[in-house]
Amino acid sequence: MSNSFGAAFRVTTFGESHGGGLGVIVDGCPAGHPFPFARVAAQLTRRRPGQSKLTSPRQEADELRVLSGLEPGTDLTLGTPIAMVFANSDARSNHYDDLAELYRPSHADYTYDARYGVRAVAGGGRSSARETVARVAAGALAEDLLATLHGVEIVAWVAEVADVVAPLPDLATLDRAQVDTSPVRCPDPAAAQAMIAAIDDARREGDTVGGVIRCIARKVPAGWGAPVFDKLTAGLAQAMMSLPASRGFEIGDGFAATRLRGSQHNDPFAVHPDRAQIFTTTNHSGGIQGGISNGETLRFAVAFKPVATLFRPQHTVTRDLQPVIFQPRGRHDPCVLPRAVPMVEAMAALVLCDHMLLARLARVADLVPRPPTDDAT
Amino acid sequence: MSNSFGAAFRVTTFGESHGGGLGVIVDGCPAGHPFPFARVAAQLTRRRPGQSKLTSPRQEADELRVLSGLEPGTDLTLGTPIAMVFANSDARSNHYDDLAELYRPSHADYTYDARYGVRAVAGGGRSSARETVARVAAGALAEDLLATLHGVEIVAWVAEVADVVAPLPDLATLDRAQVDTSPVRCPDPAAAQAMIAAIDDARREGDTVGGVIRCIARKVPAGWGAPVFDKLTAGLAQAMMSLPASRGFEIGDGFAATRLRGSQHNDPFAVHPDRAQIFTTTNHSGGIQGGISNGETLRFAVAFKPVATLFRPQHTVTRDLQPVIFQPRGRHDPCVLPRAVPMVEAMAALVLCDHMLLARLARVADLVPRPPTDDAT
Amino acid sequence: MSNSFGAAFRVTTFGESHGGGLGVIVDGCPAGHPFPFARVAAQLTRRRPGQSKLTSPRQEADELRVLSGLEPGTDLTLGTPIAMVFANSDARSNHYDDLAELYRPSHADYTYDARYGVRAVAGGGRSSARETVARVAAGALAEDLLATLHGVEIVAWVAEVADVVAPLPDLATLDRAQVDTSPVRCPDPAAAQAMIAAIDDARREGDTVGGVIRCIARKVPAGWGAPVFDKLTAGLAQAMMSLPASRGFEIGDGFAATRLRGSQHNDPFAVHPDRAQIFTTTNHSGGIQGGISNGETLRFAVAFKPVATLFRPQHTVTRDLQPVIFQPRGRHDPCVLPRAVPMVEAMAALVLCDHMLLARLARVADLVPRPPTDDAT
Amino acid sequence: MSNSFGAAFRVTTFGESHGGGLGVIVDGCPAGHPFPFARVAAQLTRRRPGQSKLTSPRQEADELRVLSGLEPGTDLTLGTPIAMVFANSDARSNHYDDLAELYRPSHADYTYDARYGVRAVAGGGRSSARETVARVAAGALAEDLLATLHGVEIVAWVAEVADVVAPLPDLATLDRAQVDTSPVRCPDPAAAQAMIAAIDDARREGDTVGGVIRCIARKVPAGWGAPVFDKLTAGLAQAMMSLPASRGFEIGDGFAATRLRGSQHNDPFAVHPDRAQIFTTTNHSGGIQGGISNGETLRFAVAFKPVATLFRPQHTVTRDLQPVIFQPRGRHDPCVLPRAVPMVEAMAALVLCDHMLLARLARVADLVPRPPTDDAT
Repeated sequence: MSNSFGAAFRVTTFGESHGGGLGVIVDGCPAGHPFPFARVAAQLTRRRPGQSKLTSPRQEADELRVLSGLEPGTDLTLGTPIAMVFANSDARSNHYDDLAELYRPSHADYTYDARYGVRAVAGGGRSSARETVARVAAGALAEDLLATLHGVEIVAWVAEVADVVAPLPDLATLDRAQVDTSPVRCPDPAAAQAMIAAIDDARREGDTVGGVIRCIARKVPAGWGAPVFDKLTAGLAQAMMSLPASRGFEIGDGFAATRLRGSQHNDPFAVHPDRAQIFTTTNHSGGIQGGISNGETLRFAVAFKPVATLFRPQHTVTRDLQPVIFQPRGRHDPCVLPRAVPMVEAMAALVLCDHMLLARLARVADLVPRPPTDDAT
Repeated sequence: MSNSFGAAFRVTTFGESHGGGLGVIVDGCPAGHPFPFARVAAQLTRRRPGQSKLTSPRQEADELRVLSGLEPGTDLTLGTPIAMVFANSDARSNHYDDLAELYRPSHADYTYDARYGVRAVAGGGRSSARETVARVAAGALAEDLLATLHGVEIVAWVAEVADVVAPLPDLATLDRAQVDTSPVRCPDPAAAQAMIAAIDDARREGDTVGGVIRCIARKVPAGWGAPVFDKLTAGLAQAMMSLPASRGFEIGDGFAATRLRGSQHNDPFAVHPDRAQIFTTTNHSGGIQGGISNGETLRFAVAFKPVATLFRPQHTVTRDLQPVIFQPRGRHDPCVLPRAVPMVEAMAALVLCDHMLLARLARVADLVPRPPTDDAT
Repeated sequence: MSNSFGAAFRVTTFGESHGGGLGVIVDGCPAGHPFPFARVAAQLTRRRPGQSKLTSPRQEADELRVLSGLEPGTDLTLGTPIAMVFANSDARSNHYDDLAELYRPSHADYTYDARYGVRAVAGGGRSSARETVARVAAGALAEDLLATLHGVEIVAWVAEVADVVAPLPDLATLDRAQVDTSPVRCPDPAAAQAMIAAIDDARREGDTVGGVIRCIARKVPAGWGAPVFDKLTAGLAQAMMSLPASRGFEIGDGFAATRLRGSQHNDPFAVHPDRAQIFTTTNHSGGIQGGISNGETLRFAVAFKPVATLFRPQHTVTRDLQPVIFQPRGRHDPCVLPRAVPMVEAMAALVLCDHMLLARLARVADLVPRPPTDDAT
Repeated sequence: MSNSFGAAFRVTTFGESHGGGLGVIVDGCPAGHPFPFARVAAQLTRRRPGQSKLTSPRQEADELRVLSGLEPGTDLTLGTPIAMVFANSDARSNHYDDLAELYRPSHADYTYDARYGVRAVAGGGRSSARETVARVAAGALAEDLLATLHGVEIVAWVAEVADVVAPLPDLATLDRAQVDTSPVRCPDPAAAQAMIAAIDDARREGDTVGGVIRCIARKVPAGWGAPVFDKLTAGLAQAMMSLPASRGFEIGDGFAATRLRGSQHNDPFAVHPDRAQIFTTTNHSGGIQGGISNGETLRFAVAFKPVATLFRPQHTVTRDLQPVIFQPRGRHDPCVLPRAVPMVEAMAALVLCDHMLLARLARVADLVPRPPTDDAT
């Protein structure tokens, strides 16, 4: 508990990294939407390991099977649960046999044992980043709804790797094609080169690096979110901090905001002269005020720690409390950041899609029955 | 939706800053616990405005009334919902009359209107920090359960104000008495003086400052948390980012972890020679690995923006889309940090208490019936 | 857990029969609705004891205080939680002192002790029917939304008391005024007389009676409900079986349907010639098929057991496992049915209001943004 | 929404009757329990169609694949979500082609269209009783936990078919073997013969029959349940009324209780002389008082309507509102009762398992940490 996320657009994921497979059930997807196979496939491809020397050589086809929730023939969503399942095709679990008895440092081996008294040893089990396949698939469906209904555009990118900090791109025009011009998914060519060098350096030394992903969501209307525990900020924070290896979350100016005076940080309101609409002349708030979107571009950042699996000997202990030296083998990413880009986008989409639906219930005036829609009986 | 938080120890808050009152319902508090009136009162006092010149002069008695859930005479919890209600005694809502028609920059006025089409004007309504009275009261109950059952100790302090950064205190011994030696709630005397100066400077200029609160929880056993969406990290992040004015969250080394190599960041496991127990020789992870506590001290930080209410003129617009100059009056904190210390502690306690309960359901071996307890029939 | 009910229109109740008070938080009420004080008061009056010799002489003012969620002046709902609180004004808890140590037969004394190891002795604590004040208040708000947005009409009545069975009224025209013509809330005058006689007979003998309440909801549109666990039938069943003293639930023909052949029970579809709309020529299904409303009148029944508190000596045991003879005193209803009528209506309204909201999220076509409503910014 | 059920032991089902498959995710199953493959298979076999001439000739292997949540080798539960998936192997969906445009009377065709504007035509889609495969599998896991931890025994049987009413069996000794001696799952041989005759009569006339299933749960300890909306009664009612074709629910004496005086219906408490334990000398309450179990045998009944699919012509309309005569083909049960027996048991197990877990959190005294269990680290 709990492997579910969301109130109105609710996903439930399952699966270990090695075993029969993993997947996700989406409950609450509105009916009549063409299932976005292409968008899901595109995001799964971006998440997949083995795309470049920067990431794990593990090859997973990640072949999506949608077991339910679509009308055969039209692939329209039925309003019933959409089950998406992925087989675990390339598992070499013998790589992990010697891990059964020791606790890898800064992995979840020990904490899972402490909690459950039993754990899936191969590949990290439920704690494997492979679990995010399910999130990325569900998130792509969510963002398709967001794009269709409101034109929402979600774009994440690698903003920092180790001590390489990329300059801020043009947030009004940044798109995924620009992000994907580099295998490290940083849209700034010079920074991307430096990041690749930093990753290569670490790999050569059997070490790993971390970094920061930034993400924006454009065209989120004003009024999504909630006042207290379900602030949009709180939901995004939970979503991002539920990703493997995430260590920090910031909205808008984030920690840097603590160094500003209120007079510097406040975002003055103004009115678009041509279209009678309120906007803010700055966006230190990152598009959210009081937990509710204000119509400006959402902007947040997520910190990812360096990957815990090193190809260097490390001190640790066994389940029997014996000290040992651990020397990992297997297939691992020296840097999780490039592959985490679609994960961040997916989790942002899940949060926003949920709030898009909930926002439809906020006002009595919006609940006055409408004439039946065309596809109604 | 949703004004509730927690799965097993579930709080639901209500109330605007001005009106009949506000409060919280705690559902899921185990039966037979003496209600900790003293602890609740102590934390409410720490949250209360008007304690020093650093904070708002608004005087609120914050007098707690427990309407339900306690057995008269013994004040033992009954297992039924505990309703805690606070009257709004010192509301001078005429201060806010002129706010009905304009949107204060970086407040929730505009976003509430965008969402609901109507809002409580006086005092910010539901977006007021006064809502946190309810959280602090419920959190004090939660931490009393944590302390009673596991000896958990939660201590937060002001670590940064504006550009003043306090040195890290001794996390093994830090307590609330040390924190409260300074009105700014920074346990380092020199830093506390500098913070007070920074706040005073800002106030004199009609301006405001932000800062960072750090928090630890000692004696959290290994095994609390969950693998995916309810990672302890994710729950803490949601909790903290649901606090008014919070802008960022970090666990362990947080954003600084992104600059470390894996070999620097990993926490090696070792064994206490005398008591056959695993520990980590460093704690970059902040006590959580894979979303589950590892028995080390939990450690996280929360960024708070500078208070949005300035005593300086600001550009904004009215509901009718007319530009105006806004010059606030009323009673406000120039710096929210000192009062936010008990809020952070309260939200941490709510997250931990919920996970303490859920952890009792994690293993079949722990669910084997026990002989009846003494107080049973 | 759990004292909450509903997904989108979510109520959380609290309070014991004796103590500081009881109440309900409504989370998810859409903004901009005038709070229906008159409707709430009317239903509270119908629920109140002491209205006639048929019911308990306990006098409770049931004075409603709305602490939050309304804009002062307009009483428009704000979209934030609406807290409704009632004081416990007429509690004579000394009546219950001798109950502390014995278990009243077929009350919740023993089971509460078995669960919690502690209980509120006075007046039954949380198990008292007084808890339903909160439900009736919240239900009246829910039915006001249903009536405003869809013209839904909910009417319950006493259909049976002991072995008196009233003939079925005209379901197309039955209203609450007709129901209230008799203090027993049976719209058939002859049956009402017989019911009153049955109740008086029981009372004279220090005994009690049960009965059946039937309820209809007219003008529920087709399409409310859900396919599986949240079938409208399932929600109504949970709601009704959560009422004190309820023992059975039926939808449509209910248990009598088990004696019919499929060819007798099926409801043929037909088309209104004048308004191109589908209807069923019979309504054995009670307005729900596959868990979703079909546009016909909803129709269900709830069985209530005879009141457990008798004014006759009964065998029971004490907490110390000593056999005793229990002779109740205090103030109690010989028949709960008349007062349960507004409780049934309230719970039906809570279920339907929740599904009314959820139904707005069922189709993509209904989620296409609309032009801003008049009261929007 | 919502295809999930349960708070602590939470199941989420998915799947249409024809398509890629269906299944269930169990979230919250405690770790370290051997997955009960035999028990699951046994209950699936009892649910399966094609077992006798009484039921549908459709052949489904119902082959269970557990994709996640078990440790390979030991088949111990991991504490992570258990995904159970079933393929749809014997679907002849062309049987349903002509159903795309008409609404079968008393099926969910029309209501699904009214809600979603689209529906899975083949086999009834999500409304098919095939969805209960998932419930039966999850329920068998739940009852295995209940049996292991508390020795709980759940037995359901067919008590009535059409107007045949079986005498009440000995509730203290009834077991599933006795129930299964007859294909109609009525343990009374004479009544079973009469039921079979009634079903055969109906079938010969192209008609269908309904009936009543009764269910008991022995050895449920006192103290499971909750006071208000999550009364054990309410949970069982929701669970049972969520089953396809169910029309009514009774606890204990149910509707018959309404004809009794309180002095007849109350269950006097007494004490077992030899083992200092409270019991009731009668059990009109059906083992639940105030929503919480009292240690007596749980006892309830569920009414099932006659199957809606008849092999007789019926009046109905098309999606285009044209009247038509509908003459079904395909494979259907003339009586759903025998196969519904394991469904009722499964839903009872899900409710009880959830409350078994929640009951562990009811008292502070039960939450005092225990020494580590043997399988702990």
